[in-house]
Amino acid sequence: MKLYDNAAFTSPRRVRIFLAEKGIDIPREEVDVLAGEHRSSEYLAMNPDGTIPLLELDNGEYISETVAISRFFEHSCPQPPLMGNSAEEKARIEMWQRRIENRLTNSVATYFHHATEGLGERDRYRNPEWGQKNRIVAIEAMKQLDSQLEGNEFVAGDSYSIADITALCAIDFARAVDIPIPDDCPQLERWYQQVSQRESAAA
Amino acid sequence: MKLYDNAAFTSPRRVRIFLAEKGIDIPREEVDVLAGEHRSSEYLAMNPDGTIPLLELDNGEYISETVAISRFFEHSCPQPPLMGNSAEEKARIEMWQRRIENRLTNSVATYFHHATEGLGERDRYRNPEWGQKNRIVAIEAMKQLDSQLEGNEFVAGDSYSIADITALCAIDFARAVDIPIPDDCPQLERWYQQVSQRESAAA
Repeated sequence: MKLYDNAAFTSPRRVRIFLAEKGIDIPREEVDVLAGEHRSSEYLAMNPDGTIPLLELDNGEYISETVAISRFFEHSCPQPPLMGNSAEEKARIEMWQRRIENRLTNSVATYFHHATEGLGERDRYRNPEWGQKNRIVAIEAMKQLDSQLEGNEFVAGDSYSIADITALCAIDFARAVDIPIPDDCPQLERWYQQVSQRESAAA
Repeated sequence: MKLYDNAAFTSPRRVRIFLAEKGIDIPREEVDVLAGEHRSSEYLAMNPDGTIPLLELDNGEYISETVAISRFFEHSCPQPPLMGNSAEEKARIEMWQRRIENRLTNSVATYFHHATEGLGERDRYRNPEWGQKNRIVAIEAMKQLDSQLEGNEFVAGDSYSIADITALCAIDFARAVDIPIPDDCPQLERWYQQVSQRESAAA
């Protein structure tokens, strides 16, 4: 088993934190995105989408998509559960996980690639107006999270879950591209300090 | 328990097919999107995102997000499994499910809202260039699906799964907005005919 990883990007960090919370240590190989390694014919043969992270299973199969990789480990190493126990918990965690992906992670990424320098020449198409629209959506999403964290210790309730991992990585990505947590979001700031101090956050 | 539903849109259809495959029948309430009912203060109090479908649980909690709703039923009514049995199967199905959402469903929706008449005055912001870019991504995604279906009866392998539901609904959405299955995709066409004939497809 091997994880194709990259130290600088948001999605592979989500998997590293997930693994750290479960105490799982597997071999990792760094993919040099800035050198275009994820676009090499060798990498595309493993993952036609060219995305990172990518998990090579012991049976030789490749699994792409951050949450699909996480789900493999949720079921092969169930403790501690990061995707919920009961049907209600699983649904609530998945709801928040997807809300954050759709409205925060994806909006920050779109802003980064379309309205900033992004990945330089590797971002061949840019639509700055669309990028700026997404910046507004990202800030709205932070305010929604702030409301949810009023009365909830973690994003999906009383327990730390994959929704917290997704939110933490999205917020750190946003901060890196100059979309800070708004001043009127004290609960989000409180939660951000708390989850950033977990040992897994450094993974 | 109650499902807030809409007969014309793609996401609620995904949940209806999922329920039909499991033989689950629950009360449904139609939300009149064209009349703006999903933007009413009453609806937004249940789901601040204003999205449909929305599931009201027996404990009074509301679950939004198509796949979160589906996952609730996958765990409360496990048979037949539509999200996989083993950790490997669950990961493979989730990978395809997300590839299709990211590259096909979302691209078709972006094309619809930005480069066509969309929802008329309800689509307050339009970026036609971005819409057209997404049309190209949608067609590429269909070609990737065609390759995957070469040698696989269903999208994620030998068994019908939520990935087939997501793909069927995305393809029907694409057809409705004049993005047909490309002529050079015989496996996708074969699969499309097959899954369209299941009783659940009419749900």
